Amino acid sequence: MILTVTLNTALDITYRVRSLRPHTSHRVSEVAERPGGKGLNVARVLAALGHEVTATGFAGGATGRKTRELLADTPGVTDALVPVAGATRRTIAVVDDLSGDTTQLNEPGPQVAPAEWGAFLDRYDELLPAASAVALCGSLPPGVPVGAYANLVRAARSHGVPVLLDTSGEPLRRAVAARPDIVKPNADELAELTGSHEPLRATQDARRRGAHAVVASLGPQGLLAATPEGRWRATPPARLHGNPTGAGDSATAGLLSGLVEHLPWPERLARATALSAATVLAPAAGEFDRTAYEELLARVAVTGEVSAA
Amino acid sequence: MILTVTLNTALDITYRVRSLRPHTSHRVSEVAERPGGKGLNVARVLAALGHEVTATGFAGGATGRKTRELLADTPGVTDALVPVAGATRRTIAVVDDLSGDTTQLNEPGPQVAPAEWGAFLDRYDELLPAASAVALCGSLPPGVPVGAYANLVRAARSHGVPVLLDTSGEPLRRAVAARPDIVKPNADELAELTGSHEPLRATQDARRRGAHAVVASLGPQGLLAATPEGRWRATPPARLHGNPTGAGDSATAGLLSGLVEHLPWPERLARATALSAATVLAPAAGEFDRTAYEELLARVAVTGEVSAA
Repeated sequence: MILTVTLNTALDITYRVRSLRPHTSHRVSEVAERPGGKGLNVARVLAALGHEVTATGFAGGATGRKTRELLADTPGVTDALVPVAGATRRTIAVVDDLSGDTTQLNEPGPQVAPAEWGAFLDRYDELLPAASAVALCGSLPPGVPVGAYANLVRAARSHGVPVLLDTSGEPLRRAVAARPDIVKPNADELAELTGSHEPLRATQDARRRGAHAVVASLGPQGLLAATPEGRWRATPPARLHGNPTGAGDSATAGLLSGLVEHLPWPERLARATALSAATVLAPAAGEFDRTAYEELLARVAVTGEVSAA
Repeated sequence: MILTVTLNTALDITYRVRSLRPHTSHRVSEVAERPGGKGLNVARVLAALGHEVTATGFAGGATGRKTRELLADTPGVTDALVPVAGATRRTIAVVDDLSGDTTQLNEPGPQVAPAEWGAFLDRYDELLPAASAVALCGSLPPGVPVGAYANLVRAARSHGVPVLLDTSGEPLRRAVAARPDIVKPNADELAELTGSHEPLRATQDARRRGAHAVVASLGPQGLLAATPEGRWRATPPARLHGNPTGAGDSATAGLLSGLVEHLPWPERLARATALSAATVLAPAAGEFDRTAYEELLARVAVTGEVSAA
């Protein structure tokens, strides 16, 4: 199974309103809820691709119970979340009917107590031996040490389990030094890590800092990968219109599935790019359109150079 | 005990953000939750005034469980809510730190099945004999018949229990004809019911339609009452600055507590007006400031004429 870690899970709520106008009252015409936080999004896409997935991290309160109820309805994902006393955060996406634009409201995560963090570490150690790969995704809730991901990377590596990391800021900086197999920053996160706004240079720099492979997501421009086997750029066939929510998490799922299936890098990148594009095109945020995915997969351009052996 | 009925209960959530800007992302700095829907607000204020209160209506889903958990923490209120399969709605009030202004997002209520409505009617009939008064408050969720309040008024009257009604539109129109003891519309609801925008004329007209007493809430101008004993106007001592959320529900609690304590109308109206004003002045939406209430109570002006016996 593939193990996904979401320390700051969320109950993602989407509201449709006619048009959001500050300081007025709105009747919400439609409410949708799904389990959220980057790692749970990755788990859902991996399961849709046919992989067996176990999702761990934290969940608590009424919102955590609801998140777990929704997760139980997601075929292929096993719930191994660890209870916390605090309540799982909500995120609210308010979509305007008129413009299609989204206004986002994100609650802070619950405070995690030292004993709760300890309980998570025990659960993670129990789960690692059965994992074919691990994804560490998203922000850290308050109370979790800033070096958390660095520890989790080291633990995975000591079990010989490949690990992908998708986070930002100081947690990313520390975890990169622990030598994860893949890091997947976006352009801003990569620039913050390396100080360089030039993606080619920055991906190389991130490798020097410890990451074996760096896959930078450049939004509509696709993916840029710097790996021990070579450097590649994967580009979607056309500029896509739609909702980019969750597109990065679909790319992560594409990379991980390609990793456990031992695909060569160009195929992993094509899959990740097509999944990401098919997520932008899907009507519901964070879902992917399977027909679009299969069609796009053949049309992603992957160019690059293979390193000398 | 006083019985409050909230068919469309809510989990009221308040978010603080720096400043709400449509189509951008916001970090919520503070989250507060409380049991909501007009009848639960009335119950909370009645309990704070020292009355024994039983709250019925519907609650369902994760949001309903949370609402009941919060209600259990409210001393003096007994939970007699009836379960429904659908989820209790959320209301989200987004308060700007910079301006203090509020943007409101209101989910629709859950669909109520005929069997669930039947279960509620059974519960209501069980509770009525022990009630000293009943408050019927707020909107009807989908699936509840539009004549619901008319039925509930008739059932209360057949048990000899005085009934106060605070709703709007067609449910108000039908229930007024069932001869409730008090209706408490605001100026817009009263105009919709009677077709008159002149409050004095409209309160008289609402009495002719069946209400024994009509107490119109005129916002900052206070209350206007037309009753079998006479007509009165109650005015707060000064224009108040603050958050008017829940001020109308505090007035309802004031009227009800005055009714069960057999206070004369001018005292009921003074209490309702002072409670309403003390709610506007309280820092948290829907709470009232007890010191302000006691101080304001002596300063509310009640003027009017007593009917000839």
